[in-house]
Amino acid sequence: MTTTTPPVAVIMAGGSGTRFWPVSRTKLPKQLVSLLGGPTMIQATVARLQPLIPAERVLVITTAAQAEETRRQLPMLKPAHVIAEPVGRDTAACVALAALIIAKDFPGAPMILLPADQVIDPADRFQAALAAGVDQARQGRLVTFGITPRFAATGYGYVEVAEELGRDGAIGINRVARFVEKPNAEGATEYLASGRFRWNAGIFAWRTDVVLRELAAHTPWLIEALTPVGTAWGTPGFAEALAAAYGPLKKISIDYALLEKAKDIAVVTADFIWDDLGSWDALYDHLPADADGNHVSGEAIAVGSHNNLMVNRSGQTLALVGVENLSVITTPDAVLVVARHGSQQVKMVVERLAVTLPERI
Amino acid sequence: MTTTTPPVAVIMAGGSGTRFWPVSRTKLPKQLVSLLGGPTMIQATVARLQPLIPAERVLVITTAAQAEETRRQLPMLKPAHVIAEPVGRDTAACVALAALIIAKDFPGAPMILLPADQVIDPADRFQAALAAGVDQARQGRLVTFGITPRFAATGYGYVEVAEELGRDGAIGINRVARFVEKPNAEGATEYLASGRFRWNAGIFAWRTDVVLRELAAHTPWLIEALTPVGTAWGTPGFAEALAAAYGPLKKISIDYALLEKAKDIAVVTADFIWDDLGSWDALYDHLPADADGNHVSGEAIAVGSHNNLMVNRSGQTLALVGVENLSVITTPDAVLVVARHGSQQVKMVVERLAVTLPERI
Repeated sequence: MTTTTPPVAVIMAGGSGTRFWPVSRTKLPKQLVSLLGGPTMIQATVARLQPLIPAERVLVITTAAQAEETRRQLPMLKPAHVIAEPVGRDTAACVALAALIIAKDFPGAPMILLPADQVIDPADRFQAALAAGVDQARQGRLVTFGITPRFAATGYGYVEVAEELGRDGAIGINRVARFVEKPNAEGATEYLASGRFRWNAGIFAWRTDVVLRELAAHTPWLIEALTPVGTAWGTPGFAEALAAAYGPLKKISIDYALLEKAKDIAVVTADFIWDDLGSWDALYDHLPADADGNHVSGEAIAVGSHNNLMVNRSGQTLALVGVENLSVITTPDAVLVVARHGSQQVKMVVERLAVTLPERI
Repeated sequence: MTTTTPPVAVIMAGGSGTRFWPVSRTKLPKQLVSLLGGPTMIQATVARLQPLIPAERVLVITTAAQAEETRRQLPMLKPAHVIAEPVGRDTAACVALAALIIAKDFPGAPMILLPADQVIDPADRFQAALAAGVDQARQGRLVTFGITPRFAATGYGYVEVAEELGRDGAIGINRVARFVEKPNAEGATEYLASGRFRWNAGIFAWRTDVVLRELAAHTPWLIEALTPVGTAWGTPGFAEALAAAYGPLKKISIDYALLEKAKDIAVVTADFIWDDLGSWDALYDHLPADADGNHVSGEAIAVGSHNNLMVNRSGQTLALVGVENLSVITTPDAVLVVARHGSQQVKMVVERLAVTLPERI
């Protein structure tokens, strides 16, 4: 095994949330839509890897329902490299599948795993952090990427750092002391104050032989089930082998299967802007503001209105008069008006529509 | 002249406001749209006169731009009785024109003048008040209709009552002490407290010979200019005569030309619900409320939202989440979100669109 084979990226794109209803839909989840205007989130994710990871070294793991649209949005990828899971079996299965495929198609290449639906900027600092993480991965470590907390977030998992393994300018590399689940407000405040905690960005790097060895040690049933799928990769029997193996699999996350148990894990702390955009509230910070603090995507008119999020995707004239701290979203078939800091409740609209008007979700 | 000829109603329908943008438009003003759902306001106005004033005794004075749509909405009216003013010359000209036409087509009939765009309910109490006013008109008085103030409104003109001329149940008839313009807040509070003031509903009744005589005394130039138009009524030369006479006319309101100067004016105070619907805020009170105090016209979803006005005319799913005291209006080409009690500012949106996107106003 060479240690200089360039890395391969695996984009995990199985999400199906409706937190960005009405722009995101059951059949068109967050990663396949443009929330900020311009490219969709998955297109931006592929673009952001260039030139570190050229498109021919990018794989996408997605769902059967989204595979066609994903291939349409990413014509620069090999169609076979957009791989549809027949059913969702959480991230450990996804990682094992990807590792088996990469070991066959790109022998010796370290793999980078990343979600399809994050806001990350700028691309060069992101790539520098990835490169630093790949260096660690080549040495046989499991590598995770951590974000320095900007506030006491209760919506993210955290990584506690231990001793420093290296540093390259703004990029710090530490051994991981432990992974922790989403904290309560008190815990989040402590984590923020301590300076020893990072947000877990859900981005990882490792060698395929290392991750397969570790998974075989901690979840042998998973590797046993998926090894025949790896063997079938590149043959006409792949889809059938995948469906046969995936169906009976127990769901388990890579965090639980591996990261919380493995010993030699490094965390790369970098200085890029990162947001996993959990709701309309989070989008607010990523759109430019006008003089009145209104953050706008699309055409909009604001009169005596301040600090609103306005996302107009319907072609209608959208006008706000004398209102503050609202998110107003239009699409051709829906209009949402939601209080800022209350957009977690949007799911209740989706739940009602699921009963009364399922074609609108 | 007989005093038992049944009355004729003249509906003044020249308004072109945009206070109900985006539902009302320059080419489709308030009276030609349905704000409450169901019939348009002018259709409701004609219906509300039945059976007191059958459709064959209803005239509409409107603008050239709106005449065709008005005739389309009121197929039960004689097309010739929807009369288009070539230009707007305020209400005194409109009254004189209608009086001249009625004197010719319905000799001896008293006339009732009323706007096309008011909410009035119930019809039977309204008709009882009109009948009481017509009785006064037959005796040679100018008659106006007053509404007992429900609050210290600064948006209406007022009528001060003098001695009682008669009473019929809830309907009181008084001599008018004076007409007063829209007061400031202090004045409105005094008027409300005194019990002697009524909102001026802009509804009138009089004999055509009386009003033409009074106008001839106070504004002889107006009657001089319009008499040839009355002569041409019913001939092919009418439209040309009307255009020739109207063009040079000075604009003057019936209030200023006549009511503030005439002596023998009666005011009928009745107990019907009345609102001239000046803005979206006013509409709120006329739509049914759900358990959370949301007043809704059209399909809408409200989650954790209270005391909003929701008017959905676009066919989109309209959803409000965690918001209060908003008016949200949708049409196929526009979405308006405006703070309740702030809808007077909607005109600023219209002013901006007039420059940037005039087809949307």
